[in-house]
Amino acid sequence: MTLRELLSHCDHTALSPTTTWDDIRALCDDGMTYGVASVCIPPAYIHRAKAYVGDRLPLCTVIGFPNGYMTTEAKIAEAADALRCGADEIDMVIHIGALKEGRYDDIEQEIRRLKGVCREHILKVIVETCLLTEEEKIRIAQVVSRSGADYIKTSTGFSTGGATPEDVRLLRAHTAPHVKVKAAGGIASIKDAEEFIRLGADRLGTSRLVNLAKQQGL
Amino acid sequence: MTLRELLSHCDHTALSPTTTWDDIRALCDDGMTYGVASVCIPPAYIHRAKAYVGDRLPLCTVIGFPNGYMTTEAKIAEAADALRCGADEIDMVIHIGALKEGRYDDIEQEIRRLKGVCREHILKVIVETCLLTEEEKIRIAQVVSRSGADYIKTSTGFSTGGATPEDVRLLRAHTAPHVKVKAAGGIASIKDAEEFIRLGADRLGTSRLVNLAKQQGL
Repeated sequence: MTLRELLSHCDHTALSPTTTWDDIRALCDDGMTYGVASVCIPPAYIHRAKAYVGDRLPLCTVIGFPNGYMTTEAKIAEAADALRCGADEIDMVIHIGALKEGRYDDIEQEIRRLKGVCREHILKVIVETCLLTEEEKIRIAQVVSRSGADYIKTSTGFSTGGATPEDVRLLRAHTAPHVKVKAAGGIASIKDAEEFIRLGADRLGTSRLVNLAKQQGL
Repeated sequence: MTLRELLSHCDHTALSPTTTWDDIRALCDDGMTYGVASVCIPPAYIHRAKAYVGDRLPLCTVIGFPNGYMTTEAKIAEAADALRCGADEIDMVIHIGALKEGRYDDIEQEIRRLKGVCREHILKVIVETCLLTEEEKIRIAQVVSRSGADYIKTSTGFSTGGATPEDVRLLRAHTAPHVKVKAAGGIASIKDAEEFIRLGADRLGTSRLVNLAKQQGL
């Protein structure tokens, strides 16, 4: 797979708390230059980014991020506001504490309600694999499969670890075929990116691939 | 100052993404036993906690937490929902990227709108001192002073550092007298706690003081 093809699977990401509009504008410029799938940016910048990129670049944002323990009502209000501001895709975080309590039905209901707000917009569900047991990963993959979500996503990038080949393989094996997999966090090289795609990931959350493309003068 | 007095200044805190209801219930039990100022818990648990503690223990929760880069509309919706669920106190995070851009007026307006939702409920404003320069700390202390907020709070506990004696002293010196200071993160001993109170903090965000009280058989 060429670097150009890998870039087309990339959600080019900037989610540091100190990220400024200058950072976001540069991210959008690079996203348009390199033909990424989307830029993934904080909700507070979606409105300005939409005015800047128009329809030239899909905008992805994060909801209930990164800790996941907001109320469902708050997540719904946050997602609805992000869509009003111009977001094209929504990456939400599940309530991991509820998962640890075994309240999988509550998590499924929450995802369904979020998808009801997103409608035709892509909804990705972040499950934070680094905090889950293998059994929990399999059960949440099954929940996401029947929830109406479009993607299951490994990681926020703000916890104890990012995507691993083992987790991408496991999620791909236990998630329904119509639901795609996004690997995020710790994707540092072209080799990593190719490996995640080969194992079944459809999207990659990273900022490093664009930087590698720049270094290569692509 | 006795440990019992220190505990009365303590927001007894559990904000890990994996925190379960069993953890929160135990935190509430300890909070009531040791006479803390409040328990600080995720929004998703406020409703159950309110049903459990009634009016025996103030409940504090976190808004726009920990990265601060949600939209103002989302923070307002999140705070309003938390108050409806039974929260007594709201700890919000400012948009640090906006601060880095020098948009202090936007931050002040956001805090004012949050205080409009909180009304008689205590609003604390987390500024994440570890990410700020000294000049930025002084300017944001001035902004919080005129915003209507009740407290300025040093840290989320999710960034590169927690409260330091230098920062508590600096915030106390540059924040208006009617606005109190909360030190959070890295409070590991009774000596730390006493030092922060001596330097002008009115609240301490930590779970360690209750654990120390238990060890001492208080």
